[in-house]
Amino acid sequence: MPNSNVTDLPAGFRYAARAAGIKKSGKPDLAMIVADRPAVCAGTFTTNRVVAAPVVLTRERIRSGLCQAILVNSGNANACTGKQGLADARRCAVLTAGALGIAEELVAVCSTGVIGVTLPMTCFETHVPELAKELSVDQVHAVAEAMRTTDAFPKIAARSVVIGGRDCRIVGLAKGAGMIHPNMATMLAFVMTDAAVDGSVAGALLSTAVERTFNRITVDRDTSTNDTVLLLASGAAGAPALVPDSPEGLSFAAALEAVLQDLAKMIVRDGEGATKLVRIQVDGAASETDALTVARSIATSALVKTAFFGADANWGRIIAAAGYAGVEIDPDRIRILFDDVPMVEKGLGLGAQQETRATEVLKKAEFTVTVELGLGSGSAWYHTSDLGYEYVRINADYRS
Amino acid sequence: MPNSNVTDLPAGFRYAARAAGIKKSGKPDLAMIVADRPAVCAGTFTTNRVVAAPVVLTRERIRSGLCQAILVNSGNANACTGKQGLADARRCAVLTAGALGIAEELVAVCSTGVIGVTLPMTCFETHVPELAKELSVDQVHAVAEAMRTTDAFPKIAARSVVIGGRDCRIVGLAKGAGMIHPNMATMLAFVMTDAAVDGSVAGALLSTAVERTFNRITVDRDTSTNDTVLLLASGAAGAPALVPDSPEGLSFAAALEAVLQDLAKMIVRDGEGATKLVRIQVDGAASETDALTVARSIATSALVKTAFFGADANWGRIIAAAGYAGVEIDPDRIRILFDDVPMVEKGLGLGAQQETRATEVLKKAEFTVTVELGLGSGSAWYHTSDLGYEYVRINADYRS
Repeated sequence: MPNSNVTDLPAGFRYAARAAGIKKSGKPDLAMIVADRPAVCAGTFTTNRVVAAPVVLTRERIRSGLCQAILVNSGNANACTGKQGLADARRCAVLTAGALGIAEELVAVCSTGVIGVTLPMTCFETHVPELAKELSVDQVHAVAEAMRTTDAFPKIAARSVVIGGRDCRIVGLAKGAGMIHPNMATMLAFVMTDAAVDGSVAGALLSTAVERTFNRITVDRDTSTNDTVLLLASGAAGAPALVPDSPEGLSFAAALEAVLQDLAKMIVRDGEGATKLVRIQVDGAASETDALTVARSIATSALVKTAFFGADANWGRIIAAAGYAGVEIDPDRIRILFDDVPMVEKGLGLGAQQETRATEVLKKAEFTVTVELGLGSGSAWYHTSDLGYEYVRINADYRS
Repeated sequence: MPNSNVTDLPAGFRYAARAAGIKKSGKPDLAMIVADRPAVCAGTFTTNRVVAAPVVLTRERIRSGLCQAILVNSGNANACTGKQGLADARRCAVLTAGALGIAEELVAVCSTGVIGVTLPMTCFETHVPELAKELSVDQVHAVAEAMRTTDAFPKIAARSVVIGGRDCRIVGLAKGAGMIHPNMATMLAFVMTDAAVDGSVAGALLSTAVERTFNRITVDRDTSTNDTVLLLASGAAGAPALVPDSPEGLSFAAALEAVLQDLAKMIVRDGEGATKLVRIQVDGAASETDALTVARSIATSALVKTAFFGADANWGRIIAAAGYAGVEIDPDRIRILFDDVPMVEKGLGLGAQQETRATEVLKKAEFTVTVELGLGSGSAWYHTSDLGYEYVRINADYRS
């Protein structure tokens, strides 16, 4: 289940969080993640052409490959805020650097929340110095709390691997519930590890893991202006530098992907108003790319998602969504299963008895829809949620 | 308003409709449109790779350029029904041809409704011959009624133009409420005219008009397996053959587009659970293609559509949707208006007072959002609906 109480944390990082008055609700909204010394850093960012000020700044900063502190706020995205927004993002970095006594270039800033309103800078002026004083190795959960906007629960995941005889730990924090589509819509994730990872290796590992996790989830297909995933490696576990394709390198890559996958699934499960987490598994496509295209088309269909909400084994909508994905498919070869219950063979429904069994699967909080195309060996998956009344309620009222 | 009582109908066509027992509700579900003699015919069809049996058949049939009868049923889409489905569609054509005493090749068949269930052929065996006996020039409204599935109201539009001193009339019927996205998702439309139009001219006119109307509406981005638009020209008005680029030819093209636009807007207004009809107008794009891409991206954003439902002037979501459209935009040049109320200038919000005025616009049943990109002279539009609770209710429960 989400929110597992992660205690075995990577060495070399400290955390702090506060209620700084950015959110009207008075809930925690400002947090800091600080490495004891400059950490190796890699990042992936939104593909939206409209990029929020903190993303502009952070994307530039982490090009150096080093980062020592992340300042993150919720309640205000500092997006569509023009020159003032960029100046404010810079000021946030300056404040953080000043409070920590480190170079400004080692600070990343991230914001999430309402678009189009400038940051309330007095909140930052007042609370950033206080955060710096409160840093502690055990406040990681408080940071996850302070990152929340419409999130129903904070999101933390962790794994550990042995490298060169040393325990290396990975912990990930994420926020994101609505506006989630591939290419990382209003989603922030910070991953800390005490493994020793070179800069170029960190970038490649993160890109691969993001591609297979955060880029394969959808709640509502919208892509935000602020999405950011940052990986910080402190090396504080004292293990030798990671060798990418060695057995230990592969273990680390798998552990990193597992952390991101846990977080990605939590985000879908927490999709605004979502009651179900559904894996769309497409097998037998002509290529992996085709499989991914079909999986994405099914996962993002509003009709499929409302049918999931209604526990309706409406396989016709699944076939229709596969059909308009834009890749070659042969309807007469399609096989569809809900978990292990076959519902369609050779493009034809298997009747009322199977539908009754499939409906039981659809009532579960988590299940897999497998679509076998019978054309080749390409496989891919996508995680999606159902689409229910709560999604409408939350998003129609979000700013009021 | 929709449902205007159209009386001035094109000469040369007769209509009939019945409750044939295909729908469980017992409502009208089977109809016939018959030309007095073979009419010039053109059609456009779904781009879904999974194509329903009646579409396979009709697409093939109208290649001849002639059609004399359309048999249409609601309540069952005859989609994902394999070989049996194709045999059933053929049988429907044979029954119709037999009842009318015409060649089978002159019959088009169209179906809409539930996917994955074979047609209840006894309904057709019984009622097609009766329909043929009941044909009448004044039953066009009954046909529109019988085409409905989740449609809240029947959809009819009409125009007339003078060609060579003769009044030529155009009447269009449509069904469609959910699963509406460009490329004509679960949408059927039949357009009859008594103008004299050559086959190749009819095809070009129809394609152009569909591109600017039905292909620019969205309710939920899903594209169905059954979409069909058919144009039948009887020539019964006695006017000379249409000359495409002549003044009269252009008048006819405009009238045809107006009929389709009326129907397209009725479909959006009737979008499942929709309470608003919104035109997304994008101006100042680098090209018309770019403008259309941005308009589509905004029109299909679930977050934008839920904000419309909540009368929330959330311009940040509009900019974000423009940003992920995939074309070049410069956020600092963006101007946004809700009807004539400016809300954004140079990418920045204009504050609380304008927002209050914009919110009033958003409460209207029909309004325009104009997005000026400031990059060139490319313009395009898209029609969309809001996304509310009713959409979820209807689609979660559709089959139960």
